[in-house]
Amino acid sequence: MAIIVQKFGGTSVGSLKRIEAVAEQIIKTKNQGHQVVAVLSAMSGDTNRLLNLAKQLDANPSPRELDMLLASGEQVSISLLAIALIKRGYSAVSLLAAQIGLKTNNRFNKARILDIDTTRMLTELQQGHIVIVAGFQGCDDEGNITTLGRGGSDTSAVAIATALHAKECQIYTDVDGVYTTDPRVDATAKKLDHITFDEMLEMASAGAKVLQNRAVEYAGKHKMPLRVLSSFSDGSGTKIEFSEQSVASHPVSAITAHQDEAMLSLVGIAEHGRVIAMLFNELANADIEVDMIVQTALSAEKINLNFTVHRNVYQQAQLIVAGLNNVVQIDALSGNDRLVKISAIGNGMRSHTGVAASMLSALYDAGIEVYLISTAEIKISVLVKQQDLTSAVQVLHTKFELNAKK
Amino acid sequence: MAIIVQKFGGTSVGSLKRIEAVAEQIIKTKNQGHQVVAVLSAMSGDTNRLLNLAKQLDANPSPRELDMLLASGEQVSISLLAIALIKRGYSAVSLLAAQIGLKTNNRFNKARILDIDTTRMLTELQQGHIVIVAGFQGCDDEGNITTLGRGGSDTSAVAIATALHAKECQIYTDVDGVYTTDPRVDATAKKLDHITFDEMLEMASAGAKVLQNRAVEYAGKHKMPLRVLSSFSDGSGTKIEFSEQSVASHPVSAITAHQDEAMLSLVGIAEHGRVIAMLFNELANADIEVDMIVQTALSAEKINLNFTVHRNVYQQAQLIVAGLNNVVQIDALSGNDRLVKISAIGNGMRSHTGVAASMLSALYDAGIEVYLISTAEIKISVLVKQQDLTSAVQVLHTKFELNAKK
Repeated sequence: MAIIVQKFGGTSVGSLKRIEAVAEQIIKTKNQGHQVVAVLSAMSGDTNRLLNLAKQLDANPSPRELDMLLASGEQVSISLLAIALIKRGYSAVSLLAAQIGLKTNNRFNKARILDIDTTRMLTELQQGHIVIVAGFQGCDDEGNITTLGRGGSDTSAVAIATALHAKECQIYTDVDGVYTTDPRVDATAKKLDHITFDEMLEMASAGAKVLQNRAVEYAGKHKMPLRVLSSFSDGSGTKIEFSEQSVASHPVSAITAHQDEAMLSLVGIAEHGRVIAMLFNELANADIEVDMIVQTALSAEKINLNFTVHRNVYQQAQLIVAGLNNVVQIDALSGNDRLVKISAIGNGMRSHTGVAASMLSALYDAGIEVYLISTAEIKISVLVKQQDLTSAVQVLHTKFELNAKK
Repeated sequence: MAIIVQKFGGTSVGSLKRIEAVAEQIIKTKNQGHQVVAVLSAMSGDTNRLLNLAKQLDANPSPRELDMLLASGEQVSISLLAIALIKRGYSAVSLLAAQIGLKTNNRFNKARILDIDTTRMLTELQQGHIVIVAGFQGCDDEGNITTLGRGGSDTSAVAIATALHAKECQIYTDVDGVYTTDPRVDATAKKLDHITFDEMLEMASAGAKVLQNRAVEYAGKHKMPLRVLSSFSDGSGTKIEFSEQSVASHPVSAITAHQDEAMLSLVGIAEHGRVIAMLFNELANADIEVDMIVQTALSAEKINLNFTVHRNVYQQAQLIVAGLNNVVQIDALSGNDRLVKISAIGNGMRSHTGVAASMLSALYDAGIEVYLISTAEIKISVLVKQQDLTSAVQVLHTKFELNAKK
């Protein structure tokens, strides 16, 4: 009898009707002979409702008290699910993070999981009970309630699955798996039956919002098999695998698009070692995250530098660059905040040369201008105009034969 | 520096505006140099909203899971109050029952408090923090959340005040104290500055809904001074005292009215010992609570019996009596379900004779028919017609000079 951990997000438990559907889903797994631990988010809307109450009292509410407040949301969803299961004749018990000894550090609002005591959960499972755990929350050494940050329930589920040596951690969402690209952008997108952890990580960082990156990292570190499924429809979803063999038949597994990129270009920087250090220090001090960085030599003495930031902080970054221009020598400044990043991701890329060349020639043939290129071990990203997003995705999706993928 | 425990009920924290008013009230007490522990109910409406969600899933929801669900209500109110206090520059910390080791037995939905560990609260108070505790809830030996039943927050407050050896336990409500009678019935009603515990207990059982009886009993047992105040207006409220001297200048301190009484009359019961035992056994088996019981001798062999029940169970009680009439000999049965119980309560009654005589002659002079009389150590109750409620209260309130009371 294996332990299966099933995580249900806010929309999956967003109404009493949805909670009853989740109960049926869990019963199905239980009746297949598994021991089930369900990890829940708050009912969708609840967290925002509570956050809004707090913000009306204080625009910057006390982090400790905010965690106390927000953690009540999961307490509601887990007890309602337990009531629904018990009504259906299945013994179930809801447990808070503190009740399963889910210990975190005391960084309120973004705590990290340190330890889980499995005693209570294992006792309940051995007695035949379905265990329902509040996701998103933990408690520190002093017994204060902490939360793991938005999307933290994914991490809760993976950590609990790891601690229980579960067979699989299933993440139920509102999509039925991971796709070769966003189906809203390219209708020929295909669901992937398998994907590697590395690909999943790159996809999350490249803008695909299926799973929280921290949860994928945690699963990768502990080799916990993950599966993404829909709580709204049947199907086996997408399994996230460690084995590269099973997946790497294509050089590219998926195409992702990341909205809201802005690029800053500094042309002709002298004394570039000192200038670049100053620039990135100032950006870091202003909490501005830099995504792509491309540096090219202009002459023996001068370089050009291009980097991208989120569109929200574009003006802030421009001010920093302009300030720098007063004290050092830069020939010209320019920028563009209507860009998007298109990435091709594939574990097979490691053993396939020429992916970048295929990608660039396909975009060139389609008349799509490429502003920047950057490469990672299993990912190649290009920066293109906002208005080219759809055509760029479709061109690359077709080029790498993802529309033909089983 | 004394510890003051202040309890705020659901209407006192029923909105963000109300929570901010409670914060100001607490700050006032803190600025007077006291250490403050606030005990809160859920925001009014929240408990019913949650209960309604549970009932939609299961008409008889699991008691354990219902407690898990309902306890989330206090978690919201305490953290919001802490946020409001911190915003005003006062350090505050909200604590759940489990976090202050408030241990109860495991009778979910109506648990009894067994123990409170004051370590955490005292540490916080010594650090100058305002402590805000979730009322109504506790936790059992296994760490499961329990609740104390409706109105349980009063009991939480008294138990916490007792454990902390507080100077006083202040119960903030929507009335500004305990009155000589219901001001809606008699506009000359006066607020009492003092009342004895015994009087408060009798008033609660006689229909005055100011405080939960269990909380008053708990305070009496542990000699914890209580005070009832309004969270909507200033004033010193009503102090509930142990000393009888300070209060007993009048034979009667208050007149209360208890609605919805129904009386059953059995005339001419033979073999009455056996019959009465059968009757009260059957009523107990049907969970019917009997309030007043009056037995009079009709002849050497026969008695008359009158007793009262809540109007809601009048028909059920009638069926039991009628069933009994088939197997034993009762000359006549009658009943009346349009009655109310008027009580005169006074600690001074012990040292004043003639209160019953005054009461009955005043009612007689006013032409008010009395159906039953029963007496307790510091209470005399009469049963009168529903339509005589107002005049009976006013006649007695005037007779015992309560309208003149300071």
